[in-house]
Amino acid sequence: MIKKILIANRGEIAVRIIRACAEMGIRSVAVYSDADRHALHVKRADEAYSLGDDPLAGYLSPQRLVSLALETGCDALHPGYGFLSENPELAELCALRGVKFVGPSADIIRRMGDKTEARRTMMAAGVPCTPGTEGNLQDLAEALREAERIGYPVMLKATSGGGGRGIRRCNNPEELTQQFPRVISEATKAFGSAEVFLEKCIINPKHIEAQILADNFGSTVHLFERDCSIQRRNQKLIEIAPSTQLTPEQRAYIGKMAVRAAQAVNYENAGTVEFLLSGDEIYFMEMNTRVQVEHTITEQITGIDIVREQIRIASGQPLSVKQEDIRHRGFALQFRINAEDPKNNFFPSFGRITRYYAPGGPGVRTDTAIYTGYVIPPYYDSMCLKLVVWALNWEDALDRSLRALDDMRVQGVKTTAPYYQQILRNPEFRTGQFNTSFVETHPELLDYSEKRRPEQLALAIAAAIAANAGL
Amino acid sequence: MIKKILIANRGEIAVRIIRACAEMGIRSVAVYSDADRHALHVKRADEAYSLGDDPLAGYLSPQRLVSLALETGCDALHPGYGFLSENPELAELCALRGVKFVGPSADIIRRMGDKTEARRTMMAAGVPCTPGTEGNLQDLAEALREAERIGYPVMLKATSGGGGRGIRRCNNPEELTQQFPRVISEATKAFGSAEVFLEKCIINPKHIEAQILADNFGSTVHLFERDCSIQRRNQKLIEIAPSTQLTPEQRAYIGKMAVRAAQAVNYENAGTVEFLLSGDEIYFMEMNTRVQVEHTITEQITGIDIVREQIRIASGQPLSVKQEDIRHRGFALQFRINAEDPKNNFFPSFGRITRYYAPGGPGVRTDTAIYTGYVIPPYYDSMCLKLVVWALNWEDALDRSLRALDDMRVQGVKTTAPYYQQILRNPEFRTGQFNTSFVETHPELLDYSEKRRPEQLALAIAAAIAANAGL
Repeated sequence: MIKKILIANRGEIAVRIIRACAEMGIRSVAVYSDADRHALHVKRADEAYSLGDDPLAGYLSPQRLVSLALETGCDALHPGYGFLSENPELAELCALRGVKFVGPSADIIRRMGDKTEARRTMMAAGVPCTPGTEGNLQDLAEALREAERIGYPVMLKATSGGGGRGIRRCNNPEELTQQFPRVISEATKAFGSAEVFLEKCIINPKHIEAQILADNFGSTVHLFERDCSIQRRNQKLIEIAPSTQLTPEQRAYIGKMAVRAAQAVNYENAGTVEFLLSGDEIYFMEMNTRVQVEHTITEQITGIDIVREQIRIASGQPLSVKQEDIRHRGFALQFRINAEDPKNNFFPSFGRITRYYAPGGPGVRTDTAIYTGYVIPPYYDSMCLKLVVWALNWEDALDRSLRALDDMRVQGVKTTAPYYQQILRNPEFRTGQFNTSFVETHPELLDYSEKRRPEQLALAIAAAIAANAGL
Repeated sequence: MIKKILIANRGEIAVRIIRACAEMGIRSVAVYSDADRHALHVKRADEAYSLGDDPLAGYLSPQRLVSLALETGCDALHPGYGFLSENPELAELCALRGVKFVGPSADIIRRMGDKTEARRTMMAAGVPCTPGTEGNLQDLAEALREAERIGYPVMLKATSGGGGRGIRRCNNPEELTQQFPRVISEATKAFGSAEVFLEKCIINPKHIEAQILADNFGSTVHLFERDCSIQRRNQKLIEIAPSTQLTPEQRAYIGKMAVRAAQAVNYENAGTVEFLLSGDEIYFMEMNTRVQVEHTITEQITGIDIVREQIRIASGQPLSVKQEDIRHRGFALQFRINAEDPKNNFFPSFGRITRYYAPGGPGVRTDTAIYTGYVIPPYYDSMCLKLVVWALNWEDALDRSLRALDDMRVQGVKTTAPYYQQILRNPEFRTGQFNTSFVETHPELLDYSEKRRPEQLALAIAAAIAANAGL
């Protein structure tokens, strides 16, 4: 078993991994930039080491992180999500220098990171993919020919792209002609590769993804799916597990396809297979070769600790569960509480948390690195807290979510919490039937009052006077 | 459905009930003494009314509470636990004045409150009881005769007793002769009744209790059991669900007996049937006719919200679940974090909470009324927080509990948290095999250092200097 892990990340996911280490009796080592010196992951880890004054360079340096792991006696490194988690160089360097990487091999990360290669692998394995080009496009003439064959609208995509960049929708040959050089230019600048390909554009799909776990004893299991259709500009806001939108047959099929996708590349560790669902059709979109932000909701419905399983697998142990023993119960929702002002175009709202009070009671989980007095640095992601709510049925989960959001206090910065309360009250959302266009087609949900209901004390005092008079 | 509930309680259970109301769209009304004017239940309720300057009188006055409920337009009253929750006068007054009481009828409360009456009812219904006298004892001569028949040691108990008072163990006729007038005197003073009876003393039993729910459509279900053997002087410290100590047959039998006990009195609402378990023998001890402090762990393993079910039942609705659909998953532990100093004979440690940080991450639930800056008043129970931890298996639940206790910060008062960490590390406790003598027979667990491990920052700075030099 692994003895000591360097956590090559920050924020709530670093805290999440530290907690798993603590439960497993593994020593945890945090790293931090100067901007992060008061961060919770620094306080909660068993040891913590500075990466210097640049807010990003240290978190993004495979050499520095692996050297630090070795110098501090770590036998493993957990990359979290974001930063270098899907960078094959970090995985490779770990392998080279004898540090266990908590994730798949560099080779698998590379194969899944190259979108045309991933498509080819999945098609060969019999995992349904969006209709599209088999490989990369040579030139505009090929692009126009292929687009006719596929049928408009099409998505022009950078082969090395990701995170919603290097992607354009083209509705006709004119748009494709116009966008072709632009995407190539953008891809070259952003990803250092001019390769592009075409996929059929799936209109208003649902975003459904399946969590998988694979050990190196030949066992690959799925932990059911998550519905991440509630997005804004390709950024997930609210995630739901299991999906309210699947038949039992679809659920079983997606689980089967996710396991097949993982087995096709001899996948190891935790991963997520993302699909687009349109009507009854399911299309492979991509595989994320790391733990995801929204792994929490899968933990809530299955009871399985995904980060612990990751560490077990990296330690060379078998999965602690068999497919036939994995059950889902109830519904879980995750709300990404971002330090942003939804009413001001979701503009970041960094600064001091003057007050943080975690909601409690049944079915409520929080994963966060904030605390009262913490100053959110402006250099990183704006997500400051994950609120995860579970209940035995969908309606109760929605009502409990509203209650938990009301119960919670994150003061000093604007957050997305009141916007989520609007979504939770929306009748269409409450039916559980929605797709990726939901946020965009409901701009009216941004029309809410900033004012919280007044604190009860003033009311209470007035009421007390009245009540005492009457008694 | 009930529209507005007066919560005739304070502290964490008042907050718990407010949360259930919020989820159900029911308006909540808090009450508070002057000492409680800054309490969380006052801040979180929809309305709050003062009960005046006496810290206890208002919470203990059926007339005042029911009048206030009517004046504020409440159609129901929830008594919580403690205070008047098992006082038949409150239930009766509610019935008389048309306020729904969230609990069973006054008649049921009375029948279960009288211990000899409850024993007679249970024996008639075929629920196994400890061998003992059939009714109350006339005099010492009868007591000595009955004790010979039952066999020493015996427990001499006040018929109206409870909470560990009015109970004495007698090992022989001399002790019985000596204790008989004392218990009568104590019972008369404490409970206003001189009635006493005898039960066989079960040596070092396990305390196992079953949660039941009964609606007024003839449905009575059990939600499995809780093991509350970890007690100190008859006060529960750590509760566990389900018990690690039962065979599946024992579990099924206890559930069946609990339902039988409830049906024997046409029970309605939530209740708990307490048993003593000795070897393979199970004995009815008493029935608690209210929600219990430890209902949380049953919620964690079954997913059922017991307070919501209580309110549904009081509203005249059927239970939301059927026995065959109630499943338990994993293990939950509840730690009663008391503001007490375990190293100073558990002496209360009231005062200002200078810092409260709720533990988070997977499998952790907190129910509390404290917050940073809150001053714990000296008039009430010392329990200030319930930490509830769940995991899919027993070992993981123990490791997660240790982590959560370490993660939590309750500063400014001494608490029982470090003592629970000692218990969690004890090999005997970890086997899951223990009885009510555990705390008493392990005084060495109180021998711990007060010092927390040092905050990591100082260490981190030193390490950073070293690391930077080496890089």
